[in-house]
Amino acid sequence: MNGIKGFLIDLDGVMYIGDREIPGAVEMLRILNKKGYAFRFVSNTTRKSRRTIAERLLKMGFEIPENTIFTPPIAAIAYMMKKRGKNRCSLLVTGDAVSEFEDVCTGQPAEDVDFVIIGDAGEKITYESMNAAFRSLMNGAELIALERDRYWMAADGLSLSAGPFVSALEYATGKTAVVVGKPSKDFFALALEEMGLEPEEVAMIGDDISTDIGGSQETGMTGILVRTGKFREEVLERSGVKPDHIIDSIADLGIWLLPIPSLQNRP
Amino acid sequence: MNGIKGFLIDLDGVMYIGDREIPGAVEMLRILNKKGYAFRFVSNTTRKSRRTIAERLLKMGFEIPENTIFTPPIAAIAYMMKKRGKNRCSLLVTGDAVSEFEDVCTGQPAEDVDFVIIGDAGEKITYESMNAAFRSLMNGAELIALERDRYWMAADGLSLSAGPFVSALEYATGKTAVVVGKPSKDFFALALEEMGLEPEEVAMIGDDISTDIGGSQETGMTGILVRTGKFREEVLERSGVKPDHIIDSIADLGIWLLPIPSLQNRP
Repeated sequence: MNGIKGFLIDLDGVMYIGDREIPGAVEMLRILNKKGYAFRFVSNTTRKSRRTIAERLLKMGFEIPENTIFTPPIAAIAYMMKKRGKNRCSLLVTGDAVSEFEDVCTGQPAEDVDFVIIGDAGEKITYESMNAAFRSLMNGAELIALERDRYWMAADGLSLSAGPFVSALEYATGKTAVVVGKPSKDFFALALEEMGLEPEEVAMIGDDISTDIGGSQETGMTGILVRTGKFREEVLERSGVKPDHIIDSIADLGIWLLPIPSLQNRP
Repeated sequence: MNGIKGFLIDLDGVMYIGDREIPGAVEMLRILNKKGYAFRFVSNTTRKSRRTIAERLLKMGFEIPENTIFTPPIAAIAYMMKKRGKNRCSLLVTGDAVSEFEDVCTGQPAEDVDFVIIGDAGEKITYESMNAAFRSLMNGAELIALERDRYWMAADGLSLSAGPFVSALEYATGKTAVVVGKPSKDFFALALEEMGLEPEEVAMIGDDISTDIGGSQETGMTGILVRTGKFREEVLERSGVKPDHIIDSIADLGIWLLPIPSLQNRP
């Protein structure tokens, strides 16, 4: 763990399960802060805003500033901001995540945008909205996908996620979406940029061997697998991914932590 | 042309252009009938019913029986009919082509169908209709695509065709659609079956070097290219496809035709 100055930390399964803190997680967060490590909480949640996520975390005892939470909508905004002069966007997104884009993607005619951002859009998917997105793309806009999952389990049964509609727009236009969620390299790179750190200075802590560990290792980060959340020994064995470290839970991270006096946390 | 007992004939560009007969086409049709050749008119039209197509042809002077017109909806029905006991279907199709399916695909709950049939569905595409199709497929239904074009030019601009939504459902389910339009082998095979002829007994006459000629040759038929409709010399040269015969127009087919006394036309 020499040279590690910051952490990307998965939320669900690493910091909490259901509505309960993983024992020791709150204390570990306090230690990380005290020792001056940089960190971002990375989640693939595309429907919730950072505010909603932070409020939920607070109820579990985590005092996590909104601006240390890094989600696909935030990554999408970071991606757009890097392209100076190009920030007109249209949205195929639902849920309160839409509020993240309030200052960026509203009131622009579909024909005239630089980016089409598609997430799990639910009822907002219509022929008209898909066609508007298609025309924007044919007019030169870039396609940003907050995720490309196939489906998810809704209350009334399996339901289409963003992936199928991303594929539809890719097929129609011949373009390839930039995916700004784990495990895409673009997502991890944007999170690192926000912290101002290089991949070799950062460790990713997660419970998903492929999305969290495989993905971060491919970007050049250190991958630390926790044995909480969705961790399963047999999935680890079958994965072909070799974590740099495996710890029982995030509470055990402390044994490696050195103070980093030169670095202030930079949320 | 020895051994040829029947023809598949493209309509647009071969029999007519715009609203006008290709000179000699009506007469050639009379000769085909008189000499006892079997034939089917094959078109990739997915929005129009055979009745509508036949009525339009009649205005141009063609007396073509409805049941010699073979379109993707008709091919879809033929495909389903081959699977005995499996004919419950749901539709994502618009236009009066829907009427072709009237006796087959109505009033069935989406969860309980054997086939999902998707064509150019326009406004019928919603999250709900796509999700219903998705759930049918996950419950074991087979996906039949009337076409998989990317887009078409509508009055108000480029508009999504069926292809993108076929891709969406394939991505979501991991299934592959059976495409029942030219140049798919399934489409040609179903047309041949309807005529009761083998590929080597049939010639396809068309103006599209890849869809009509390449496609039919791959099925084992004779491919006859006409120099009418969308025919372009440079497209032919670039195509890499070698038609078995090239004729100036369908009017020139007569020179090869022998009477086939053993065979009645079997529309």
